[in-house]
Amino acid sequence: MAHGLATSVTLSLPAWLIEELPDLPDALATPEEQMALVHRLADRNWREGGGGPFAAIVVDAVTGELVSVGVNVVLGTGISAGHAEVMALALAQTRLGTWDLGEERELALVVNWRPCVQCYGATLWSGVRRLVVAGEGPELERLTRFDEGPVVADWAEQFEARGIAVTSDVLREEALAVYRAYGESSATVYNARGTGPIEAHP
Amino acid sequence: MAHGLATSVTLSLPAWLIEELPDLPDALATPEEQMALVHRLADRNWREGGGGPFAAIVVDAVTGELVSVGVNVVLGTGISAGHAEVMALALAQTRLGTWDLGEERELALVVNWRPCVQCYGATLWSGVRRLVVAGEGPELERLTRFDEGPVVADWAEQFEARGIAVTSDVLREEALAVYRAYGESSATVYNARGTGPIEAHP
Repeated sequence: MAHGLATSVTLSLPAWLIEELPDLPDALATPEEQMALVHRLADRNWREGGGGPFAAIVVDAVTGELVSVGVNVVLGTGISAGHAEVMALALAQTRLGTWDLGEERELALVVNWRPCVQCYGATLWSGVRRLVVAGEGPELERLTRFDEGPVVADWAEQFEARGIAVTSDVLREEALAVYRAYGESSATVYNARGTGPIEAHP
Repeated sequence: MAHGLATSVTLSLPAWLIEELPDLPDALATPEEQMALVHRLADRNWREGGGGPFAAIVVDAVTGELVSVGVNVVLGTGISAGHAEVMALALAQTRLGTWDLGEERELALVVNWRPCVQCYGATLWSGVRRLVVAGEGPELERLTRFDEGPVVADWAEQFEARGIAVTSDVLREEALAVYRAYGESSATVYNARGTGPIEAHP
């Protein structure tokens, strides 16, 4: 007889962010305003120690309504899937009561870099209609030493083929500034399986 | 001021599986015994209506100890990330209290097909040392009409480069039998963003 098997997992936002939620605006009109919030939360997140320098939000692309807010919670929760994108998407689905975020509205996921391979898939299956990223390319891995995993070269086309529009380079330099500050700090970069430069993404 | 933003997400196993947990063996000695349990749970899962025909377990590769059990809970929870692999990995991390499942033991994820792109990444970041799959290839998508997403061609080598050993073709025909039964049923295959044969993976 198997004893002690877990039956549920709970992923919570960190206390500092829950405290801040009532002060966030109901809506953020432009992608730049949306990304500025993402960058601010990403920067605070690693400084608070709960996870890596990553944040994501789900917004209504038409009205700018803020639907959910997520940050990377891997260190705080001990759950490796707790990346910012998974948190923002799951919190939006919790709030709206559906696994399909594109069912009724033009919802967008706004995140501070091209998602890692796990969150690439999580975005695909979430039903969102848009993905807005601050940038893409090797700078994230170089500055932070996080492994993003192998993503197909035509990743943006694969999104578009599934009805998900991709916008890149929204406040790109500001994203790099967050990663640079993180990389120059003494913050934990989680160890990898295996050796060499490959390290587990938080 | 933003009101009504969700602050946590809970992913629970379905009631029928929670009820069955005390009757599961403490350990499953061989990959075949482990996969037989996965197939049985996957087949029951879609018939119970909580998600697709997918199950996964985390076991100690040395002792066979059963560490966690997961099934696809997308329909039951409304959370699109709730695939069997994410559930099994997160439940193991919950039980063991660490995001790194390879830290102290040779833990393996056992699942009834090559993971979709989201769960490919979730496996990479979980710290497990081994992945055991019933099979790989287009049969899953053809029989069930689920989209698995774009995964790199050298996916197994990418796992190995990160210290995760891959074993395939464990009770492969039995996996196909589950997918065939599912595909021939009237069970829900979730609609896609976009058109054509691409459909969201549960």
